[in-house]
Amino acid sequence: MAQAEMAGDRKTGDCPCTQAQVLEHWQGHRRLTRKVIEAFPEDQMFTFTLGGMRTFGAMVHEFLGMALPVANQVATGTWGDPIAEKPTDKAGLLRLWDEHTAKIDAIVPAIAPERFHEKIKIYEQYEVTGMEAIQYTVDNEIHHRGQGYVYLRALGFEPPAFYDRS
Amino acid sequence: MAQAEMAGDRKTGDCPCTQAQVLEHWQGHRRLTRKVIEAFPEDQMFTFTLGGMRTFGAMVHEFLGMALPVANQVATGTWGDPIAEKPTDKAGLLRLWDEHTAKIDAIVPAIAPERFHEKIKIYEQYEVTGMEAIQYTVDNEIHHRGQGYVYLRALGFEPPAFYDRS
Repeated sequence: MAQAEMAGDRKTGDCPCTQAQVLEHWQGHRRLTRKVIEAFPEDQMFTFTLGGMRTFGAMVHEFLGMALPVANQVATGTWGDPIAEKPTDKAGLLRLWDEHTAKIDAIVPAIAPERFHEKIKIYEQYEVTGMEAIQYTVDNEIHHRGQGYVYLRALGFEPPAFYDRS
Repeated sequence: MAQAEMAGDRKTGDCPCTQAQVLEHWQGHRRLTRKVIEAFPEDQMFTFTLGGMRTFGAMVHEFLGMALPVANQVATGTWGDPIAEKPTDKAGLLRLWDEHTAKIDAIVPAIAPERFHEKIKIYEQYEVTGMEAIQYTVDNEIHHRGQGYVYLRALGFEPPAFYDRS
């Protein structure tokens, strides 16, 4: 209730949030995730797990299956085809990652401002705004990438610095 | 360069981002982190680690040391005193968590819109905008909480659902 009142506040929209800022935050995290993929030992990518969880390679497949489709959905309202390709080696993961990076760089700056407000249906079931869809996608990647950091540490490798999004 | 041009785009500000939305996203994640604290076995909170990393209790101390000071800094420009209290049991962590939740609920809706744009210095060294300071604080909590999920799984406990921010 208080939130609904606040959302109607005249201050709405003064808070900075441009396509450029959304893209930079998203791609900054995707650059960090790419470093974790690079740092991960090839022979453990699809084999090492802790606590009965997924391999880091399986988590990367999830990231690749979310980011570009969500960008397309927010931009055009079309979810498009699911990402069928699931590379099983590091080089393949990085190649597909870079292909999606270039596409997301082209899509996000062209998103019409109102699309960030409009409700869309993602994964053919969740009704969220465009901004919520992107935020959830980034947050999910941070969450599972953090788990990849534990895998790296447990394997004796130093993960990249969390704050470095270069 | 392209980003700088985009940031100057007339569309700037059309993208929705209100104090209410910032607060809801932040507190939604803090509610999830609180569930992870509740789910964590008391006797492992400050003892269990993987890969030579910190205990989950130490990560919670970091979360508590960041959120409220950052909210104060964005709202008032004053970092204020560091959070000196570091509870060493679950009840103490949850009590301090709830105290900070109430304070953040009171602070964020009152933040002047321009404060989200203005550069501030956090941790007495990083120059970022108010929005970047909050975003980094939330992202850092997601990252380390995801590591807490691995600790929980490794200890044989089911973590709360990532998507449930209730």
